[in-house]
Amino acid sequence: MRIGLDVGGTKTDVVAVDDAGAIIGRLRVATGWGPDAVVDTVVDAVRALGSETGVDLGAVRSVGVGIPGQVEPGTGRVVHAVNLGVDELDLAAAVSPRLGVPVRVENDVKAAALGAHALHAVSGPPPRSMAYLNLGTGVAAGIVSDGTLWRGARGAAGEVGHISIDPNGPVCRCGQRGCIEAFAGGGAIAERWGRRSALPVRDVFDAADAGDPSAQRLRAGLARGVAAAVRVLVLTADVDIVVLGGGVTALGDRLMTDVAAELSASAEASPFMRSLHLAERVELLPPGSPAAALGAALVGAEGDATHDTEEALVHG
Amino acid sequence: MRIGLDVGGTKTDVVAVDDAGAIIGRLRVATGWGPDAVVDTVVDAVRALGSETGVDLGAVRSVGVGIPGQVEPGTGRVVHAVNLGVDELDLAAAVSPRLGVPVRVENDVKAAALGAHALHAVSGPPPRSMAYLNLGTGVAAGIVSDGTLWRGARGAAGEVGHISIDPNGPVCRCGQRGCIEAFAGGGAIAERWGRRSALPVRDVFDAADAGDPSAQRLRAGLARGVAAAVRVLVLTADVDIVVLGGGVTALGDRLMTDVAAELSASAEASPFMRSLHLAERVELLPPGSPAAALGAALVGAEGDATHDTEEALVHG
Repeated sequence: MRIGLDVGGTKTDVVAVDDAGAIIGRLRVATGWGPDAVVDTVVDAVRALGSETGVDLGAVRSVGVGIPGQVEPGTGRVVHAVNLGVDELDLAAAVSPRLGVPVRVENDVKAAALGAHALHAVSGPPPRSMAYLNLGTGVAAGIVSDGTLWRGARGAAGEVGHISIDPNGPVCRCGQRGCIEAFAGGGAIAERWGRRSALPVRDVFDAADAGDPSAQRLRAGLARGVAAAVRVLVLTADVDIVVLGGGVTALGDRLMTDVAAELSASAEASPFMRSLHLAERVELLPPGSPAAALGAALVGAEGDATHDTEEALVHG
Repeated sequence: MRIGLDVGGTKTDVVAVDDAGAIIGRLRVATGWGPDAVVDTVVDAVRALGSETGVDLGAVRSVGVGIPGQVEPGTGRVVHAVNLGVDELDLAAAVSPRLGVPVRVENDVKAAALGAHALHAVSGPPPRSMAYLNLGTGVAAGIVSDGTLWRGARGAAGEVGHISIDPNGPVCRCGQRGCIEAFAGGGAIAERWGRRSALPVRDVFDAADAGDPSAQRLRAGLARGVAAAVRVLVLTADVDIVVLGGGVTALGDRLMTDVAAELSASAEASPFMRSLHLAERVELLPPGSPAAALGAALVGAEGDATHDTEEALVHG
């Protein structure tokens, strides 16, 4: 059995996965703020999963953690997890001795990509390649090919949010102008909308429906940014499908309709784009999907494989 | 021994590669126009390599062909090789019986990516991942990771030339507006420059140096398009390095200086972009490099590997 956790800014999602890959227990707990509290959150969440869902923690072989921040490839070190108040934290080293099992850490979007791929396999043959495009506060993607996460050379794989699509577009928090994230990031939209609420993009859509021109501009920008990210992912990595997830996708069909219209417009202008059938290749992760936590459990399981390989390298 | 051919719009480059991967013979011949002439070109080029360089054709185990057009994955069928007057051609089936060895076909940019990767390995440890960005009439890339070509789901991998970076940019031949290729494609630049010559981009650079404002705009657009393609390749696939090749790179340092300045500008605006050290990750393929033909020879050799794997799957 494997445990996977998706440590979010406010909630942490934890699942237990059996050896066949099925989720046999799931729980959500509040996430603490700062390095020590994040470590406690992970440890407590695992223990609570045992006590509240009856999962036998003695049978756990690994723990995987998905976390919003840069994770140094191959280590359990997290840097710049700003939404969690973490500047730098060796999460695996802090958690593993307290739980008594190997712990692996991965960026949450990359973990969600693996999980979304695995969930696809439940309903049918998995796509050969897939991108998971996370529309949360920021915009980032994870790419899975032949079941393996594309990690890239220096941790920038999937950072499509910071590709500029308009030299006259809004300034992005990264400092560039017209980034995909400046159009489609939930944080950027909320900031430009300027009114607080639980899900500002929903207010933007409602106001756009009611005829508010500034809301209509923000809404059009969101669709434009998402469509651009889909095009980038297909025209670079040529993934079979792009799965959308993250907080902004709570808009569901309202978002999908706008994105499909935007993709259709470029297909209408261009026979080449038309040949790519982009609108048909975009899917929505169901709300409340355990993709990120499930993917984290798969990342934890990767540890065994790496360990075997390393041993083979040493002894073989 | 393997033979590799790079079938270009005017010239075909053919190399013989020994089992250690070293080039032991090379020849250039004129390319014929239309399907039959292209088939003859390939057959004649191989025979000429034997007669003119002394390479023993009896020892050839495979022939690989790189060709500008869409190649259906896993087959030898080429479609839309417009620069060669080929609408549709089963090149492998036409050539193989005449040469008496297995023939494999690949898109020329993808083949060049494999070859550029192999040439890197000669001068030191090869990069774990690499993109080859071809700046020819059009703009397209090939991505190599762990020595393997990223082919993608439907043949669109590396088609970064048709990502739009400016909604108010020039109309691309694909029908969209502001595509990277509309800024950085040699064909698009030549068309907007409007004066015929062997290498219009060189005239554009010379005129820009002499103070011509329209040439300066075209020149700035070229750098902007190339820099955007580099950003797309790193922010999506996070390749270690991006190698530039193709006809436009005959500009050499004049092009590289402009591209480096453009990349530095975005690094100055953005700490995130700065952390990627993009300017240091861009390299130029040496003029006259045999990358494309060498890569085609490697594609030809892949046939064996696939065969072995298939056998292993059947018998193992």
